[in-house]
Amino acid sequence: MILLKGAAVSAKIKIEIEDFIKKLNGFLPTLAIIRVGENPDDISYEKGATKKMLGFDIIVKHYTFSKDISNHDFLIEFEKINKDTAIDGILLLRPLPKTIDEKAIERMIDPDKDIDGIGPVNIAKVFSGEVSAYAPCTAEAVIEVLKLNDIELKGKAVTIVGRSMVVGKPLAMLMLKEDATVTICHTKTVDIKHVCKRADILVAAAGRAHMLDVEYVGQDAVVIDVGINVDKDGKLCGDVDTLSLEGVASMATPVPGGVGSVTTSVLAKHLCMAALKKLDIK
Amino acid sequence: MILLKGAAVSAKIKIEIEDFIKKLNGFLPTLAIIRVGENPDDISYEKGATKKMLGFDIIVKHYTFSKDISNHDFLIEFEKINKDTAIDGILLLRPLPKTIDEKAIERMIDPDKDIDGIGPVNIAKVFSGEVSAYAPCTAEAVIEVLKLNDIELKGKAVTIVGRSMVVGKPLAMLMLKEDATVTICHTKTVDIKHVCKRADILVAAAGRAHMLDVEYVGQDAVVIDVGINVDKDGKLCGDVDTLSLEGVASMATPVPGGVGSVTTSVLAKHLCMAALKKLDIK
Repeated sequence: MILLKGAAVSAKIKIEIEDFIKKLNGFLPTLAIIRVGENPDDISYEKGATKKMLGFDIIVKHYTFSKDISNHDFLIEFEKINKDTAIDGILLLRPLPKTIDEKAIERMIDPDKDIDGIGPVNIAKVFSGEVSAYAPCTAEAVIEVLKLNDIELKGKAVTIVGRSMVVGKPLAMLMLKEDATVTICHTKTVDIKHVCKRADILVAAAGRAHMLDVEYVGQDAVVIDVGINVDKDGKLCGDVDTLSLEGVASMATPVPGGVGSVTTSVLAKHLCMAALKKLDIK
Repeated sequence: MILLKGAAVSAKIKIEIEDFIKKLNGFLPTLAIIRVGENPDDISYEKGATKKMLGFDIIVKHYTFSKDISNHDFLIEFEKINKDTAIDGILLLRPLPKTIDEKAIERMIDPDKDIDGIGPVNIAKVFSGEVSAYAPCTAEAVIEVLKLNDIELKGKAVTIVGRSMVVGKPLAMLMLKEDATVTICHTKTVDIKHVCKRADILVAAAGRAHMLDVEYVGQDAVVIDVGINVDKDGKLCGDVDTLSLEGVASMATPVPGGVGSVTTSVLAKHLCMAALKKLDIK
């Protein structure tokens, strides 16, 4: 079984980003990372994203708010960042506290700065397969892992476990755009092992530690693990028991070091694209 | 094989619409039907929709433009209708001539009048499964045919043939909302007969006359035919060769007289919902 490591994919995306940065001709794009509260997952992702951006000389501005901020105050602060012409892209760490109207934020975000694809304009573009869409970075990272490893998608049976707005649903649309035949499974799927086993490419985006093992995987399938969970020993792990796939799956992504590490590369790529669009550089 | 007729479903939706109209307390909702050019399919759908609306005392205003209208002029005319406070809902017959920027119209349409779900706000709502979404009427008509015939969707294997923005993709999202396991097939699907045969519920939305026959259908499957085509003898027909399914499918919708006839009922329902929202009636 070949391990599809994120680092190799990120290295390829890096070349694209460096090309974009050359085109920007000295202009340094600026990313706003907005975090409400002190959720350790958010802090960890913020750190990883910041490190990745600084590697490209991308400017990162951190906007951190107390989890007790009122909805009214947060909407005002968000709109300031949203309207700030010095900001090229926005990464909003989610979910927000329940006291904040997340739907209102999604409707407010400037589609040109919405580089993680949370607002209706980008969602509709992803849905209709428009090339100018910013898809959610994690969903696009899955496509990048497959494409940059020369794994054919056209006509392939792709099964996605999970139907979230961050991965499952947008990924289904991106897969359709690549001419894959797409099946979406979830907690209510009957005989899910059997459904998964039929897949040429199986994507686990359920958010449950070690939910899928070899019993879910067909011979020679490619298995992409989007899960980032903490197991009972406090260790980072995916949705897939990857070790159990040896001799069955042809390829699989590890966790950590797989899709997750590509996500921030996609974010950096989207930010550069947003800056190029702002400066009207083709 | 039981034929699932549209008329019986429309009769049930009629009761809901009459309840809405009672709540509107004398206010008569107004539908704008916008047509560019003289496409016979458009004219036929406009006639059918008008007849259905008049049966509910719904006011229909017809806006018809020459296929030669310039993009600039059409956008101005569209915006007038879009902003007209006397209009509660808009049905835009599509596709528009290629000279018109259809994407611009989709972005312009007032989400509260977008009762056929063509704009980004409603697309995003359908995608995320929000209850306030106006889904494209044909996609929702499929759900109505199944639900109002007491056909369980939860946990069922649903296969949709076709990935259009009008039926295939939004219907996949509506099916996920009902907890079905959804597979989307299309022209690039390998071994499509086999994939379709596994479905508990098979939806044909490919737009090709008699594309699917008994070889695509599993024992006791429910077959929903969304196709409206004209066969080589000039007769209206669906995507499914329904006669061939006898003894295999448990239920199937006819064409004509199936899903198509429910679509305008869903349109009338959406229009009443839009009017209720405008008047702030719960």
